[in-house]
Amino acid sequence: MTDIKIFSPATVANVSCGFDVLGFCLDTIGDEMIVRKIDKKGIYITKIEGYDLPFETEKNVAGVSALALYNDANPECGFEIEIYKHIKPGSGVGSSSASASGSVFAINELLDRPYNKTQLSDFAMKGEAIASGCEHADNIAPGIFGGFTLVKSVSPLEVLQLPTPNEMYATIIHPQIEVKTSEARAILPKEVSMKNAIQQWANLGSFVHALHTNDYELIRRSLEDVVVEPYRSQLIPHFKDVKSATHKAGALGCGISGSGPSIFTLCQGLESAKKVENAMREIYSKTPIGFNTYVSKINVEGMKIL
Amino acid sequence: MTDIKIFSPATVANVSCGFDVLGFCLDTIGDEMIVRKIDKKGIYITKIEGYDLPFETEKNVAGVSALALYNDANPECGFEIEIYKHIKPGSGVGSSSASASGSVFAINELLDRPYNKTQLSDFAMKGEAIASGCEHADNIAPGIFGGFTLVKSVSPLEVLQLPTPNEMYATIIHPQIEVKTSEARAILPKEVSMKNAIQQWANLGSFVHALHTNDYELIRRSLEDVVVEPYRSQLIPHFKDVKSATHKAGALGCGISGSGPSIFTLCQGLESAKKVENAMREIYSKTPIGFNTYVSKINVEGMKIL
Repeated sequence: MTDIKIFSPATVANVSCGFDVLGFCLDTIGDEMIVRKIDKKGIYITKIEGYDLPFETEKNVAGVSALALYNDANPECGFEIEIYKHIKPGSGVGSSSASASGSVFAINELLDRPYNKTQLSDFAMKGEAIASGCEHADNIAPGIFGGFTLVKSVSPLEVLQLPTPNEMYATIIHPQIEVKTSEARAILPKEVSMKNAIQQWANLGSFVHALHTNDYELIRRSLEDVVVEPYRSQLIPHFKDVKSATHKAGALGCGISGSGPSIFTLCQGLESAKKVENAMREIYSKTPIGFNTYVSKINVEGMKIL
Repeated sequence: MTDIKIFSPATVANVSCGFDVLGFCLDTIGDEMIVRKIDKKGIYITKIEGYDLPFETEKNVAGVSALALYNDANPECGFEIEIYKHIKPGSGVGSSSASASGSVFAINELLDRPYNKTQLSDFAMKGEAIASGCEHADNIAPGIFGGFTLVKSVSPLEVLQLPTPNEMYATIIHPQIEVKTSEARAILPKEVSMKNAIQQWANLGSFVHALHTNDYELIRRSLEDVVVEPYRSQLIPHFKDVKSATHKAGALGCGISGSGPSIFTLCQGLESAKKVENAMREIYSKTPIGFNTYVSKINVEGMKIL
């Protein structure tokens, strides 16, 4: 195999009670990449469509992660990367992570898979770091592993692949506003009350148990974020209205995707998800803010070869 | 059935990363109670052996919880309770909880089980409250449900029964010192750093996943308390030495049982647990502090009819 076309999915990080550790993978939104083995050594970005991103390998997220793998593997060949970007940067569903992960996944395939998923995530984190300023795997882990993931630790990286109940769907609404990651970080308190911290870990423990037991009602009762959402939701106009409308429409839970501005819900079944999508649309339709929505089954495969 | 003899087990609460929510049930330490249906209405404590506790129903933990159930059920009969107390009050393995839970479990059996385990726990919390000053289910839940339990919320009470890997054993060392619950509470900070809170919930999420997947090595990596143990361990002389010795001896994890002074470990297999017990004994043998140790398989049944 000398070239490969892949789908690198969008992902949701900071899933309610699992701030900084829990994420899941989407199926209907994602970037595509074509990666080609070439004789000339090195990593070259040869095409970028969709959004205006740098072609210099060392400045491009997909380039930096690819280089990290490439320098480690030190193969006799080089690679050309074409990026077909569908995930808008800054939308909160892991755009930079999809770039960072896609290139390493594709190159690993072309090299006959010398690296496992944890190692690929480690390389992808190098690319993610130039976009977000620090190495983290919140979006990388669900993209590379698929389904629901829990990042137990970053250094050393340890990712747990959690089970995904079969009827689990997500909806996303992306309001066309900018939430700067720096602002989303600055608004967070450095300290949490013991009481809220305990409630948060009770909820996360319950959520993990609920995934293992296919207990949708427990998922509903566990999807609550008492630590971060009260702060970050202030940066997203109409968040509370969306949340309230999705609850009424039957969503299992609703929260901020990543650091926003996208808002996600989890739903049981496609029908419920479509109803919830409509409820979300209705809120923003009454405002001057433009938006996109997506409905997706949870993607348990993660990256895909097309 | 007009009388019943039961075993009310000791329990471990505040299991490392699951402070205030995670507990487990022991098998080789516990109180016994005999409860007898009588014609005369009311709850009467007729015998207490082992430790000096009040006979007045309203002042006795087992009496108060029994009354809570009794007043709700309002049966035509009354009940006599004999308490054979083996768990030392203040030892940190749920002594008051065993009293509070045992009486309601026994009366429920004699009334042909009108209440489920959550309702029994609710009644038991009324008794626990007079011993500890507030209603909590940290020790009650594992005693009544058995195995590992997660108290998702106290009001309304929601207890999750987690799976128990088959080879899971605990060891306990009870150094004969007094740690006042009030002091153990006062030493806790009201706030937790966001960083530590995140690490704690990553560990608890991982621990729950590990129980579901029988992954002893992940249990080992998850049994870490970065929030409470650094403070409370100061109240238990030689805690660090015990912890270090049990790790060397192969324990999966070691922490403070409840609010101390007992120290627990979790171990894979009886052989490992016995080795770890010896390691614990060795530390305190070199000190003037007296101690007891126990090895127990995790008790997945909880309360037992004898």
